[in-house]
Amino acid sequence: MRLKPKVNARPVRHGFPWVYASDLVTDRRTKALAPGRIALLEDSGREPLGLVAVNPGSKIIARMLDRDPSATIDRAWFAARLSRAFALRDRLFDAPFYRLIHAEADGLPGVIIDRFGDTCVIQPNAAWADALLPELAGALAEVTGVSTILKNASGRARGLEGLDEESGVLLGVAPDGPVPVPMNGATYMADLTGGQKTGLFYDQRPNHAFAASLVREGTAVLDVFSHVGGFGLAMLAAGAGTALAVDGSAPALELARAGAEASAMAARFDTRQGDAFDVLTALGEEGATFDVVICDPPAFAPSKQSLEAGLRAYERIARLAAPLVAEGGVLGLCSCSHAADLSKFRTACTRGIGRAGREGRLIHTGFAGPDHPQHPLLAESGYLKALFYAL
Amino acid sequence: MRLKPKVNARPVRHGFPWVYASDLVTDRRTKALAPGRIALLEDSGREPLGLVAVNPGSKIIARMLDRDPSATIDRAWFAARLSRAFALRDRLFDAPFYRLIHAEADGLPGVIIDRFGDTCVIQPNAAWADALLPELAGALAEVTGVSTILKNASGRARGLEGLDEESGVLLGVAPDGPVPVPMNGATYMADLTGGQKTGLFYDQRPNHAFAASLVREGTAVLDVFSHVGGFGLAMLAAGAGTALAVDGSAPALELARAGAEASAMAARFDTRQGDAFDVLTALGEEGATFDVVICDPPAFAPSKQSLEAGLRAYERIARLAAPLVAEGGVLGLCSCSHAADLSKFRTACTRGIGRAGREGRLIHTGFAGPDHPQHPLLAESGYLKALFYAL
Repeated sequence: MRLKPKVNARPVRHGFPWVYASDLVTDRRTKALAPGRIALLEDSGREPLGLVAVNPGSKIIARMLDRDPSATIDRAWFAARLSRAFALRDRLFDAPFYRLIHAEADGLPGVIIDRFGDTCVIQPNAAWADALLPELAGALAEVTGVSTILKNASGRARGLEGLDEESGVLLGVAPDGPVPVPMNGATYMADLTGGQKTGLFYDQRPNHAFAASLVREGTAVLDVFSHVGGFGLAMLAAGAGTALAVDGSAPALELARAGAEASAMAARFDTRQGDAFDVLTALGEEGATFDVVICDPPAFAPSKQSLEAGLRAYERIARLAAPLVAEGGVLGLCSCSHAADLSKFRTACTRGIGRAGREGRLIHTGFAGPDHPQHPLLAESGYLKALFYAL
Repeated sequence: MRLKPKVNARPVRHGFPWVYASDLVTDRRTKALAPGRIALLEDSGREPLGLVAVNPGSKIIARMLDRDPSATIDRAWFAARLSRAFALRDRLFDAPFYRLIHAEADGLPGVIIDRFGDTCVIQPNAAWADALLPELAGALAEVTGVSTILKNASGRARGLEGLDEESGVLLGVAPDGPVPVPMNGATYMADLTGGQKTGLFYDQRPNHAFAASLVREGTAVLDVFSHVGGFGLAMLAAGAGTALAVDGSAPALELARAGAEASAMAARFDTRQGDAFDVLTALGEEGATFDVVICDPPAFAPSKQSLEAGLRAYERIARLAAPLVAEGGVLGLCSCSHAADLSKFRTACTRGIGRAGREGRLIHTGFAGPDHPQHPLLAESGYLKALFYAL
């Protein structure tokens, strides 16, 4: 595959990991390549630039695998990438519960691997990695020593790559129930086979920790869009008086309750199932207040098309949640929308708080944790934002 | 004072705290106002908008003090603002060492107050506050119960406000030596009367904590532009094997050493006085490497005019520091330049790392701590950025 005559190869030479279809000479042969084929990329003067994984159906037609054109993408190659990622997590965390591979930034485009103690869950969301799954799983067992490896094929990107949705067990035996995960002093229950994505999101760990730092004796917490109890359990573990978790999903709340029990905090933990907007409205009508209110909704603006509606939804969340914060309390608002950048998200939140007749000071801006590294040349796309306002 | 006929009063009504000179009807009387005068601001239809502090010599000609036009700016008013700020810090910190007032975001434009246990240091960098210093200091003693209040008049903004540079003691007796400050498990020594600004910067506290989380047994740390030991001492307290602090200021390094001694870590702590660029170059020539290298320089781009030169200096720091990071180590790069926004600073750092022939993954982006709140409508101007790259 070759870059077009006038396309500058410098970004790729300097580490930019993507090639756009518009920059590539695409003849009939290129277009006929199966998604996931590994090919040699050359500049317009036929100088090799490295090995890329190809997807002729995507705007990002090629993703850099190795800038060494003579590399062989085999089990040893995977082991080298995994070892580097493992060394970083080993430096960062005291216990083996983390995101081990975060796609491009860990040198494996389209691949997500989360580790839950003795179990790893691979999301091979790119065709090249799906085709090499045996090599990847073998290297993973070798580097980490885990006894169980699961494949989670629910990722939305798989469709674009022409991949199926068949999840399964690659090594060992699937756990026969939720797995306990220690984080920020609490125990979370992660459903690794039936849950959303990999059953637990590690990305909010530092934001959970910041929220926990706000806790004083007796602090009352409202955790909206709680999923398996992310913020609420961390804050209870830090000594909060009570936490009320709100979520639309009964199974998620059941896992949250199981987590509270496993952490011996069930007496201080309560749940309310229902649409978050409805529950926020109802709590407002009841005149309920909390010392700390956190809203961690699903992506309201996952794409550019949904940006305007998404920002309105974030503003509405802020407007409904702000009245529930006691004077002197804190409101935490999160977004995991790629399309809503930090500045737009902050504007929506600030406006919503203002519309509720409250004034907020921004005390903390947090992002995804360090086990979710970013490729520095793709860092603009950081998806997770958490804003904490003192009201 | 009145807004011009076509100027929209909505931003001010919705909490925007500044009025630009170009938006105001400025007659001879307005221009003759002494800096620091408190005036009533009206919209173009003579509806009152609130009380503002005026500086006819500044582009930001007025700063909102109170949106209640009938407010009286007296000791009780200061006490109310200070109490609100104090309640937030009391929630955030276990010990009384923090920035208590961070200007606009704490409702006191141009005023900085840092607390060091029983001592507070006021920087009244605006004429309105300088004129009301007795009321402010009285309220401060009342709200916090501190026994000593110092005035630090070294702020650069004071010149623009027509203020002198006379520091002094407002209450009690000035400490006769450096004051011990506990932070992140270490003890820092702060020189509250002779040092830079207020002698210790609290803003980096969470970034010191993140750096400390990278420490493992035996970790070797290089802390460049160390000032009184910010990153190095926190990392030693977390168990680092050694820390080498580099700074151009002998008094700062002396305080850093005193901190290491007070923390019983002097045996693992070393210093090197000199120009940071020279020392980085020399260490590179010696082939020295460290597990974690941190560079926390003074503002290289304090203004728009200095932006380009500043970004080149940040890139140069990254280029000189990256080779000193051992394989698998971490490089932390900080900027306290208003003019260099996050994206520009990140680009400069990433480029510098690349020029050194290294590849980095961005594992953490940190800002100033929560005792440095931001007015949400001024949040773009967040000055402190800390980027951590795994190399």
